[in-house]
Amino acid sequence: MSFIATPLSMHFEDVLPLQGGASIHHYDLAYETYGQLNADRSNAVLVCHALNASHHVAGVYADQPKSEGWWDNMIGPGKPVDTNRFFVIGVNNLGSCFGSTGPMHRNPDTGEIYGSDFPVITVEDWVDAQARLLDQLGISRLAAVLGGSLGGMQALCWSLRYPERVAHAVVVASAPNLNAENIAFNEVARRAIVTDPDFHGGNFYAHGAVPRRGLRIARMIGHITYLSDDVMNQKFGRQLRDGLELKYSTQDIEFEIESYLRYQGDKFSDYFDANTYLLITRALDYFDPARAHAGNLTQALAASQAQYLLVSFTTDWRFAPARSREIVKSLLENQRRVSYAEIDAPHGHDAFLLDDPRYMGVMRSYFESIAKEIA
Amino acid sequence: MSFIATPLSMHFEDVLPLQGGASIHHYDLAYETYGQLNADRSNAVLVCHALNASHHVAGVYADQPKSEGWWDNMIGPGKPVDTNRFFVIGVNNLGSCFGSTGPMHRNPDTGEIYGSDFPVITVEDWVDAQARLLDQLGISRLAAVLGGSLGGMQALCWSLRYPERVAHAVVVASAPNLNAENIAFNEVARRAIVTDPDFHGGNFYAHGAVPRRGLRIARMIGHITYLSDDVMNQKFGRQLRDGLELKYSTQDIEFEIESYLRYQGDKFSDYFDANTYLLITRALDYFDPARAHAGNLTQALAASQAQYLLVSFTTDWRFAPARSREIVKSLLENQRRVSYAEIDAPHGHDAFLLDDPRYMGVMRSYFESIAKEIA
Repeated sequence: MSFIATPLSMHFEDVLPLQGGASIHHYDLAYETYGQLNADRSNAVLVCHALNASHHVAGVYADQPKSEGWWDNMIGPGKPVDTNRFFVIGVNNLGSCFGSTGPMHRNPDTGEIYGSDFPVITVEDWVDAQARLLDQLGISRLAAVLGGSLGGMQALCWSLRYPERVAHAVVVASAPNLNAENIAFNEVARRAIVTDPDFHGGNFYAHGAVPRRGLRIARMIGHITYLSDDVMNQKFGRQLRDGLELKYSTQDIEFEIESYLRYQGDKFSDYFDANTYLLITRALDYFDPARAHAGNLTQALAASQAQYLLVSFTTDWRFAPARSREIVKSLLENQRRVSYAEIDAPHGHDAFLLDDPRYMGVMRSYFESIAKEIA
Repeated sequence: MSFIATPLSMHFEDVLPLQGGASIHHYDLAYETYGQLNADRSNAVLVCHALNASHHVAGVYADQPKSEGWWDNMIGPGKPVDTNRFFVIGVNNLGSCFGSTGPMHRNPDTGEIYGSDFPVITVEDWVDAQARLLDQLGISRLAAVLGGSLGGMQALCWSLRYPERVAHAVVVASAPNLNAENIAFNEVARRAIVTDPDFHGGNFYAHGAVPRRGLRIARMIGHITYLSDDVMNQKFGRQLRDGLELKYSTQDIEFEIESYLRYQGDKFSDYFDANTYLLITRALDYFDPARAHAGNLTQALAASQAQYLLVSFTTDWRFAPARSREIVKSLLENQRRVSYAEIDAPHGHDAFLLDDPRYMGVMRSYFESIAKEIA
């Protein structure tokens, strides 16, 4: 049983200018905090989330004993990121569908549901919005900013966009940008959603419809890329769903892996917003700090002042270790302090969410060293 | 300019029993032949096709100078499989949409278009149908049976199902079965097709509809898995489609890779039959000669009498070299003669269709040695 978490929300009236040229105002950010901010406000840790997560990072809700946050194994009292020592903040990103303002909410300028009019959001925009939240919480400098996958991109972005506000950036299972294959998978998922007749050009809310077919396909593709080949063969292999006899059908479920994917797709389509899926995958595609430096990542990272921990997982083919090593190399070329752990884990990209004693050990000792700095 | 190929068709009245328990009768097989059958009928080479190919293996059609067959670089006068020495047969598989009887044709028992009633077809069924075609052509024994990917599975199956009829089996970029990840990709593609409202339960012909959305998604997924990560980064990388400025859009094409995939998906949806896609991907899923031997591939391959050439490509993650090595190992455990070439090519699974001097060299010398045997 984990501790009790309480969802909070903060309202912002001021205009937030966005990278894409648009802006947003009159918006809310859902967030949670765990632990106590110390007297000199030096023990704050911001946790950034990936595609399918939220501000509910750790703990459970009072009335829902099984509602553990998505990184509950990592964050909490006595855990690697120890909330007895750190004041941890989880925040739901703009455009998401878990409480912060997103495409399913009303545009204050028109009174209409945003739908496809919700502006395209970038990692930089998220970081800017998070910075304003920290301003309101009275936190001028983070002991650490932490995230995995797309969350790791935000952590990296924080250290470049607000270098003076970040002591440590912990970038797990991430990359300095998406490669062509990653963009390709995102694009297929987006096309599945956008071409679903129930998408209605993004204004499906008004039609009382949900583009479930597209969301299911998107999620199935996602799940394939989150797992390693090895772990898929180990968990599912060629195991049949029902008994030993083949059904000889193209549409019935024959193999266990089909059953798993269909279940994951169905579940996802019940709760995830289609416009949010488009926005978040696009934010992934766009992230590329080297772009403003003609592709030179070392130049891009010259702005950083933080110390870094990078973690990758050997079987992660979505954000392969080689991509983390690119960041490590560019940071070293800038004489930054970098620790790097490449964890030999079988679980693919999903490994960043799972318990692995070496991974947890690395995280624990890194955060212990941060705790000593601020003690 | 290649030689002129002429499509042929053969009609079969007799019942062909199928692995799934159903049967088919009154069907046609489209095929082509290149070169001359020698006097003792000992120089025949059967070429089996993969998902998206046909009986049109080599040459061009008289009125279409750009209609090269899908393996025209491999097969023809003076090419690695030299039609000056071999009588090469290409055959379109049952259930396909390129001339042989398939779901878009009429069921002779009902007079209705087959649609989703077309029986599920396995690799074994294709091989049985091909064997009957060879019977009609007066060919009792093949100098070689040859195929890549799913075509390689057919070549392997031939050597087990008709061991006395196969002198050499050439199995390129193939596997003894699909792993969970491969089945998973097939399943996502099938779900995209089946859940397209224009699929109409497989009877879209009667509705004058084509499930293009699903076919597009299926093809986009396919293309991602045919290419290696390396070649995708090299060909497309993060290159923008239009100029240097981002559009900040979730639906417009932003990156070159998106443009490429959409184009491939559109093109495919113009000509490929949705029911055929389901049938062929299912045949891939089902192929597993070890299944009848409790998963023991060595026992399964004990039936073979052929000599083998196996070829794999280092960057092929769909049918990885390790899968070819499983076959090699099991053949060696049966004391069969096996040659194996692992080609260091950057192109992923697509490499089996492309020119690579080492690959072409291996194929050429293997077929030269076969030619000497029959000379």
